[in-house]
Amino acid sequence: MGGLMDQNQVFKIKRLDVDTGSRHLVVIHPDAAFELGVVSNDRVKVRGSKKTVTGLVLVSKKIVAEDEVGLPINVITELEEVVGTEVEIHAAEKPVSVEYIKNKMDGMELSAQQIRQIIKDIVNRNLSDIELAAYISSVYTKGMSIREIKDLTLAMVETGDVIEFDQEPVFDFHSIGGVPGNKVTLLVVPIVAEAGLLIPKTSSRAISSACGTADIFEVLANVTFTIPEIKNIAERVGGTIVWGGGVNIAPADDLIIRAEYPLTIDPYPQLIASILAKKKSCGVHKLVLDIPVGPNAKVESIELAKKYSRDLMLVAEELGMVVECAITYGGQPVGRAIGPLLEAKEALAALEGKSGVPNSVIEKAVCLAGMVLEMGGVRADTGRDRAAEILSSGRALKKMREIIAAQGGDPDITSDTIQVGKYSAELISDANGYVVSINNKSIVKIARAAGAPSKKGGGILLEKKMGMKVDRGEVIYTIFSDSRARLEDAVKLANRLKPVDVEGMVLERVLPSGRIL
Amino acid sequence: MGGLMDQNQVFKIKRLDVDTGSRHLVVIHPDAAFELGVVSNDRVKVRGSKKTVTGLVLVSKKIVAEDEVGLPINVITELEEVVGTEVEIHAAEKPVSVEYIKNKMDGMELSAQQIRQIIKDIVNRNLSDIELAAYISSVYTKGMSIREIKDLTLAMVETGDVIEFDQEPVFDFHSIGGVPGNKVTLLVVPIVAEAGLLIPKTSSRAISSACGTADIFEVLANVTFTIPEIKNIAERVGGTIVWGGGVNIAPADDLIIRAEYPLTIDPYPQLIASILAKKKSCGVHKLVLDIPVGPNAKVESIELAKKYSRDLMLVAEELGMVVECAITYGGQPVGRAIGPLLEAKEALAALEGKSGVPNSVIEKAVCLAGMVLEMGGVRADTGRDRAAEILSSGRALKKMREIIAAQGGDPDITSDTIQVGKYSAELISDANGYVVSINNKSIVKIARAAGAPSKKGGGILLEKKMGMKVDRGEVIYTIFSDSRARLEDAVKLANRLKPVDVEGMVLERVLPSGRIL
Repeated sequence: MGGLMDQNQVFKIKRLDVDTGSRHLVVIHPDAAFELGVVSNDRVKVRGSKKTVTGLVLVSKKIVAEDEVGLPINVITELEEVVGTEVEIHAAEKPVSVEYIKNKMDGMELSAQQIRQIIKDIVNRNLSDIELAAYISSVYTKGMSIREIKDLTLAMVETGDVIEFDQEPVFDFHSIGGVPGNKVTLLVVPIVAEAGLLIPKTSSRAISSACGTADIFEVLANVTFTIPEIKNIAERVGGTIVWGGGVNIAPADDLIIRAEYPLTIDPYPQLIASILAKKKSCGVHKLVLDIPVGPNAKVESIELAKKYSRDLMLVAEELGMVVECAITYGGQPVGRAIGPLLEAKEALAALEGKSGVPNSVIEKAVCLAGMVLEMGGVRADTGRDRAAEILSSGRALKKMREIIAAQGGDPDITSDTIQVGKYSAELISDANGYVVSINNKSIVKIARAAGAPSKKGGGILLEKKMGMKVDRGEVIYTIFSDSRARLEDAVKLANRLKPVDVEGMVLERVLPSGRIL
Repeated sequence: MGGLMDQNQVFKIKRLDVDTGSRHLVVIHPDAAFELGVVSNDRVKVRGSKKTVTGLVLVSKKIVAEDEVGLPINVITELEEVVGTEVEIHAAEKPVSVEYIKNKMDGMELSAQQIRQIIKDIVNRNLSDIELAAYISSVYTKGMSIREIKDLTLAMVETGDVIEFDQEPVFDFHSIGGVPGNKVTLLVVPIVAEAGLLIPKTSSRAISSACGTADIFEVLANVTFTIPEIKNIAERVGGTIVWGGGVNIAPADDLIIRAEYPLTIDPYPQLIASILAKKKSCGVHKLVLDIPVGPNAKVESIELAKKYSRDLMLVAEELGMVVECAITYGGQPVGRAIGPLLEAKEALAALEGKSGVPNSVIEKAVCLAGMVLEMGGVRADTGRDRAAEILSSGRALKKMREIIAAQGGDPDITSDTIQVGKYSAELISDANGYVVSINNKSIVKIARAAGAPSKKGGGILLEKKMGMKVDRGEVIYTIFSDSRARLEDAVKLANRLKPVDVEGMVLERVLPSGRIL
């Protein structure tokens, strides 16, 4: 179908009051489409007097007449033309990467060049939603070899910006997520930085979770910075906690996630490449990865977590990075707090050495920070203790205040001054017993209903965690929200989902006669 | 994330100068999206004073302000609101069929109810392009059982209109396509109808081929009719050749094809279900299926063709239809003509008994028509001869004229009066030898470059077919077009693709001494 150019295919530009960003939309009449030999989702080249733009066809008889082409504002701007001008249109070939996506659907292994082409076309917005979804589905159903994942990672790095630090090596810590309340990054980064290692942490915002590290830290300081700013802050204070989405590192990741999200799939090779591409782009040499495991966590079995670890380490090695993985307990939320302000408060309290902070938060943070310290030269088996000492001495808090100040926040903030959502509701146990399970996914849904992550004050504070004894009438957890309406919604949802299971140790007594008391 | 309703989420309607048909688009500002806890491709409910509409979110900061919602014309109309009115927006759940699509991606078998839900959501435009592409990819990579294909077929029938004929049984003929020049339907239908069997043939237009049966027959008569009109014509003259896309039978097919087309995949279970759903919707009881096999045809091996046949017959049986399959030679174009006017001319010439019509066209048509006749009661092994007799006696031509007249065409048209494209170019052999191969896909590309199927006069007339001797300087094929520019493009493409291979019988002579003459 190439080269169907016909001198007579001339159309008048009609302005469409929309902006489709870097994805170009070209609206033509069904009769014109028929003449051009194209259908919706085909590509056409629109040739103006100065520029030529390639776009995706949308056939519609209601928007344009047969001799008109409907172009979004951004396409008209890019063509450097005005409304009413005539442009030529002819059919264009589809990107060659569509063929490679089909190869992957057929179970073939892709070459480095083919993977690079796909990622390039994704980043340049050359693929339609249909093609992008096909790519994700193919990777999900057919998988990728270690070699392919390595090439995918490199392609994601190459299509974005990179940060180069003067100081080496660069350390990092990352949790693959899936367990609510996981605010440990806010402890790990200052501990590691205080120990003199460079840890320029870039983190993400929540997509489907209750909050990401960037959402939490935003409560304390700015998280959006340019690459030179990140470099400057990190080299000055030893660490950052910034939002990775604020810079153009591995931009393919965001575009791919946007298409994964509606399908609620997270293809395994893509997950590994996404983590490592972002770390590689940030110049990381040594990385500790937290893989929480448990029912209703992202990774549900130890076996799968081991496979993740193995593959992550193999791919990282190919990329010249050293990765160590910690398989952690993800069977219930980490600590008591879920939601941006609640988690910031709990993390600060831990740094301040306040009582009442769950030991599980502190223990997880110092173990992980200790692993980073050992990668940085601290003698084996002493990392945890060194981290615990930095934390308990108050030096981690001091470093945290430096990071907050460097990122434009108030260094004098304390856990006591943080105000969480002003509306709250206590969820009460209607039975005596023990907490036997807390459903992560339900907790996330309720926290989101209460406003997290966008309404910073929304979230949940757990009073009871697994294994704890609960009496009838006792508070199991409290929901917080910035709005009464949202709180009511969250309570309704909580009553429906019942995220915390309380069971009596003796469920019922069966008497010898078979009568139940 | 259900039930996030917040009384304060009120937005002023801004009109977008587009019409998105039955797929609803809701454009909101990034800050509003953040407040609502939604991202692009999530669904929201837009509640006006009278109606509520569900739509897919597009987040854009350039189209709307934070307190505005951008709605296409069609959504505003459906809401029965006007520009500037305030509407409430809140997050909505995604259709349950997305979960089923994910199950299929994970390799699970889907229940009848799950398949029905997916197809219903496709027909109701409830699925986004991403979700639809994921469905197609999942069926392509994971396949379906016979039971699933049956349920898929039924779901496609149920979600559209059906045609019920008073006369029974209803016969049909269908070619799965993939080989250019396959105009035999224009011979089979009049032969079968003339024999007294009811054959209300609905056919398709070309998507990626040079022309579909509907594109060819449109040269001779109208092809777009309503269901009562089709019923009336078929019951009056015994047969029709109409465009299936003109009625609402199995509408899911078109929507699915639209998403398959950019991916150039044609998932096997979907292909079977599409054929049978359309036939079932048209009330067909007995069907002959033509499966052309050859390199560069849709089906490339006999083994695969046998699998198609077996599965088609199994599914058909479950649906109460009888299907017989003919595996035919598809290694080169059928007959000499490719393109709407050229094929109509060749088919009419065959019906008129003109000399010069390739025997392969006549033989293929009478064999297939004979199979239909035998399904209709003609004694075994005599169908072909009966069909040949109906054709050679001129009775098939008479019936064809009746069908043309009933569909509003000129019954006096003859093959001589048909005018093909006025511009033509002869492609000349530069060697002596024999035709050893003709590439179907290249032939289609050249015919399309010359204008087929939209420009009816565009196409190719083959002078030499496989096995024929060619002398240097002889014409191998002629390209026709309605436009000089298109012809030039087609010739350029032909010189690049070289669709016809001519090789000498003696390629080189090696003398005993090893010297090459």
